[in-house]
Amino acid sequence: MTKNKNLFWYVAGFIDGEGSFNISFTKQKYAHNNQGFKWLIHVCFQTYQHEDHRDILELLQKQVFHTGRIYRKSSPYHVFTYTVDNPRNLCEKIIPFFNKYKLIIKDKDFQLFKEVVQMLLDKKHLTESGFKKILDIAFKMNANGKQRKYSKEYILETVKEQLSRK
Amino acid sequence: MTKNKNLFWYVAGFIDGEGSFNISFTKQKYAHNNQGFKWLIHVCFQTYQHEDHRDILELLQKQVFHTGRIYRKSSPYHVFTYTVDNPRNLCEKIIPFFNKYKLIIKDKDFQLFKEVVQMLLDKKHLTESGFKKILDIAFKMNANGKQRKYSKEYILETVKEQLSRK
Repeated sequence: MTKNKNLFWYVAGFIDGEGSFNISFTKQKYAHNNQGFKWLIHVCFQTYQHEDHRDILELLQKQVFHTGRIYRKSSPYHVFTYTVDNPRNLCEKIIPFFNKYKLIIKDKDFQLFKEVVQMLLDKKHLTESGFKKILDIAFKMNANGKQRKYSKEYILETVKEQLSRK
Repeated sequence: MTKNKNLFWYVAGFIDGEGSFNISFTKQKYAHNNQGFKWLIHVCFQTYQHEDHRDILELLQKQVFHTGRIYRKSSPYHVFTYTVDNPRNLCEKIIPFFNKYKLIIKDKDFQLFKEVVQMLLDKKHLTESGFKKILDIAFKMNANGKQRKYSKEYILETVKEQLSRK
């Protein structure tokens, strides 16, 4: 029990340095299930390691979170990633963990991420106000979304266009 | 007390991802204090963070290790580094910490680093066999010294040359 607690605090520190919580938007031709908007909202908790240290990813998967996938990245080839991106698993396995074993650096991002995962589970992303709120939150995360493919303005414009055709 | 223990395990995890133990060799015109070889052996425990998270470095310095310096890197400018490179401080503050709060990924490097710090304190680097042993250890660390300025062969050659002139 104590051994596990020590491991869990170790994991909090490790993830605070090496992990990330991401919300990304992928443009779709059609709205998913004909509901909501033409954007796929992808929520993802992730960490990477060089293949030499793949063990640590297996420890996260098997001894800590009991969920998630490990796979080799196509580029760079020597890197493996541990990923949890199913909202239900995030809600049941990842979020309770970091509620208990608190992050220092990434706690702000984690709190925002948590809110979005809950909104997805409650299907709030299918409403205009819910979608816009998720967009606002996502662009506050990870140093204000510097590395994003689409701008917030562009996504909002497409939503407005879709709504005007209804 | 428990709070500190949790923090210390957090730090072990954080450093396992973000920290490094390094041994580097800098060419000198003269042997230091006219003793040993014309190479300065620099031992260093270090971690970096973007200036947005400078707090975590201060936490390491003030609440965890009670030693070390924090400074802004010249390049990239937005990065701060926390560094402990005095062998005595490494021996008294850093090494006992990671003997207790064990690393997973970097434990092998830490064990090698520890051996070299002790050899420096015992002045073994001033003898030919000691210097060569440190060189062997250093080149086993951090993925076999891929990013080194000088090759092991080059350093050994200069030592051989210096010895032949004695």
